[in-house]
Amino acid sequence: MAKTKGPMSGFRDFLASELIPRQRMIETIKKVYESYGFLPLDTPAIERFETLTGKYGEEGEKLIYQFEDHGGRKVALRYDLTVPLARVVAQYKDDLVLPYKRYQVGNVWRGESPQTGRYREFLQFDADIVGAKSALSDSEIVMMMADAMQALGVGALISVNNRRILDALSEKLGLDSDASRKLFLIIDKTSKLGKDKVLEEIKIEFGDKVSELVLQFLSISGSSEEKIDKIREVLGSSVALLEGISNLGEVFSILKKSGYGENLVVFDPTIVRGLDYYTGIIYETYLLDLPEIGSVCSGGRFDKLISLLSDGKVDLPAVGTSVGVDRLFSALEKLGKVEKVKTNSKVLVVNFPGIDPSNYSLLSKKFRAAGIAAEVYYDSSKLDKQFKYADSLGIPWVVMFGEEEIKKGLIKVKDLETGDQKLVNLEDFISSLKN
Amino acid sequence: MAKTKGPMSGFRDFLASELIPRQRMIETIKKVYESYGFLPLDTPAIERFETLTGKYGEEGEKLIYQFEDHGGRKVALRYDLTVPLARVVAQYKDDLVLPYKRYQVGNVWRGESPQTGRYREFLQFDADIVGAKSALSDSEIVMMMADAMQALGVGALISVNNRRILDALSEKLGLDSDASRKLFLIIDKTSKLGKDKVLEEIKIEFGDKVSELVLQFLSISGSSEEKIDKIREVLGSSVALLEGISNLGEVFSILKKSGYGENLVVFDPTIVRGLDYYTGIIYETYLLDLPEIGSVCSGGRFDKLISLLSDGKVDLPAVGTSVGVDRLFSALEKLGKVEKVKTNSKVLVVNFPGIDPSNYSLLSKKFRAAGIAAEVYYDSSKLDKQFKYADSLGIPWVVMFGEEEIKKGLIKVKDLETGDQKLVNLEDFISSLKN
Repeated sequence: MAKTKGPMSGFRDFLASELIPRQRMIETIKKVYESYGFLPLDTPAIERFETLTGKYGEEGEKLIYQFEDHGGRKVALRYDLTVPLARVVAQYKDDLVLPYKRYQVGNVWRGESPQTGRYREFLQFDADIVGAKSALSDSEIVMMMADAMQALGVGALISVNNRRILDALSEKLGLDSDASRKLFLIIDKTSKLGKDKVLEEIKIEFGDKVSELVLQFLSISGSSEEKIDKIREVLGSSVALLEGISNLGEVFSILKKSGYGENLVVFDPTIVRGLDYYTGIIYETYLLDLPEIGSVCSGGRFDKLISLLSDGKVDLPAVGTSVGVDRLFSALEKLGKVEKVKTNSKVLVVNFPGIDPSNYSLLSKKFRAAGIAAEVYYDSSKLDKQFKYADSLGIPWVVMFGEEEIKKGLIKVKDLETGDQKLVNLEDFISSLKN
Repeated sequence: MAKTKGPMSGFRDFLASELIPRQRMIETIKKVYESYGFLPLDTPAIERFETLTGKYGEEGEKLIYQFEDHGGRKVALRYDLTVPLARVVAQYKDDLVLPYKRYQVGNVWRGESPQTGRYREFLQFDADIVGAKSALSDSEIVMMMADAMQALGVGALISVNNRRILDALSEKLGLDSDASRKLFLIIDKTSKLGKDKVLEEIKIEFGDKVSELVLQFLSISGSSEEKIDKIREVLGSSVALLEGISNLGEVFSILKKSGYGENLVVFDPTIVRGLDYYTGIIYETYLLDLPEIGSVCSGGRFDKLISLLSDGKVDLPAVGTSVGVDRLFSALEKLGKVEKVKTNSKVLVVNFPGIDPSNYSLLSKKFRAAGIAAEVYYDSSKLDKQFKYADSLGIPWVVMFGEEEIKKGLIKVKDLETGDQKLVNLEDFISSLKN
């Protein structure tokens, strides 16, 4: 027989063994965001096509899933969570309390060519602050990212830069915006390719003079504070540079005094963030034990984007961060930080033939009342079938309450890992499980 | 200026004030399901159109959102969560541990004409057991529904019937399947219209003889066990009736002995459930204080549906339940069971001008470390603006740490509800909030 057709290419089913730890990861991060006062937001999967038009560039727009709805209107599946945020801010601007701090977890759809690790439906997890400009709001995103990684039990280093410093570099080099973008994309590869290869590429593309200044720029070393000081020596003084340096100076001061030191967050002038729309601070988060997978959580300040995306309806500064859910989850798996669980159940109550099954539903009810997830096997099948069910799902305990145990008023419990079994009192067993 | 365009008609944005309590409701029910060993499942929003074709009848199929993807394939947005379940069971049948107990919470899309309480994108919340036939599995769905309502703090009565009893009624009346369906749809309105109106309608439609037997059928009274006994007197004995009665007898015995008595669950022979595909037990859940809104959680046994929906690839019995998320939530709101919260934050730390803001990020960090959601106002705006922010979001406490407080090493806290404020020690305040 041919293999039953699964989901379409680029789409995924999530069964419990993957979904339970994935949801736990997401819940852990959500809790951190909520501890900072971020509010949840949910928006529809379907938006008017005109809401999405002209927002993602030519390449992006090609990937949008668009179609006509039943009323012949042009509609589209959301491509990201930032355009919906801009729409929401524009729409509810009179009701929203500013600054508006929201997080949103939701699927987005892009008609990409499927390839390893790239999906046509994937979860985005964004947190943004709309309506605040201060270095404190910039710093808080860093703290949240650091707290989230800590809550997940992984070591991470957050690299921070400010786009104004890159602006100052391109000013000093006299490059136009196309040339600057090209240069930044090469600089962005520093953490992957190393300084030498990057400089070589720049030499070929831009010549000696540019590569020399970039060499000085990339060679800035020391603590974040020292680097911020030294960058002035390389780039001289310009409005852009002063703005960038002054913001980073404030941010690093707040971070340091708030307990987020150089072991958690560093200034890295080679961080670029590909997207054009950042206007200030930018961040990338690398896992200490798995830096090669790239950034798992990143973002920055985008003061002009909300205005652009809302077609000028609201003009508010914004700063935010986005978790790479798939990448982060696969990293946690690789690092052994994902608990292998196929179920939340702790107990399977065996269903013996010839005995009133209400004995078993009552028994499992007592476990549940004590906060212990428990299930009964629905049929009085052969015992090895029932045990195999518990074993396959990884339910740790099997509870037997057959004729003999009923007579004695005790239960027989079997630890499926060790194979040990013993007759015990129900209440004693429940309290042993709770401790 | 024209009102900014919101989401499309039939679609909704969920802001925090609605989303937080909605999510809490869903989490509460999820926890109950997980306590019974139900596993989460997630499937894509987009399925092949051929997977959905021929599954929902002509009327249903018209409502499916279908379009061509970037590769010219005919695809569709999922219309329910049952077809995806059937696909998953067919696809992973060699890996799934049976019985497979899964719950799924996810949006579905239907191109309905928008009207009050009907949406084009809405959340479905299903729980199903695939691969079990016993009365114990039937009973467990009832227990889960009852536990879920109890966990939400609402009184509910679950009405139970078995389709085999309705089959016996139509057999006794000698009706073909079209006529039976017509009759059942009238009987189904009993709880809404009352017995007399229903009988009148039946008389007009089917004549005296039918309405007389239905009168006897509807007049069966007493406890559930008595009604199960008496129904035999009306309908005589047939295979269908014996099957229905035997199942309900077992179910009510298990329920009663497991602590789910007549105050929680009753046999009601007028329950029909519109959908054709039920084959055994069926349930509806009515809220005691709001019966008029109709059933908030319902379902039944559908032993042939998985085979039908998987195009014959797997043939497994199934029983399940579906929560009417929108209806239940609006009922909870009407009953005052929805906590009015716009944020999870407990504390706003005021940002005083001229003071290093790291004082405030450090302070809020200490609250968070103690498990108290706390936020800092990002700008050192005027105090009344900062207080208004807290007030608008319903953050209960404002914490001040200005020049004087810093000198004294104390914080000033203001209870926004009473207006009281006092100078306290940070640790003391944190422990007072935790108690």
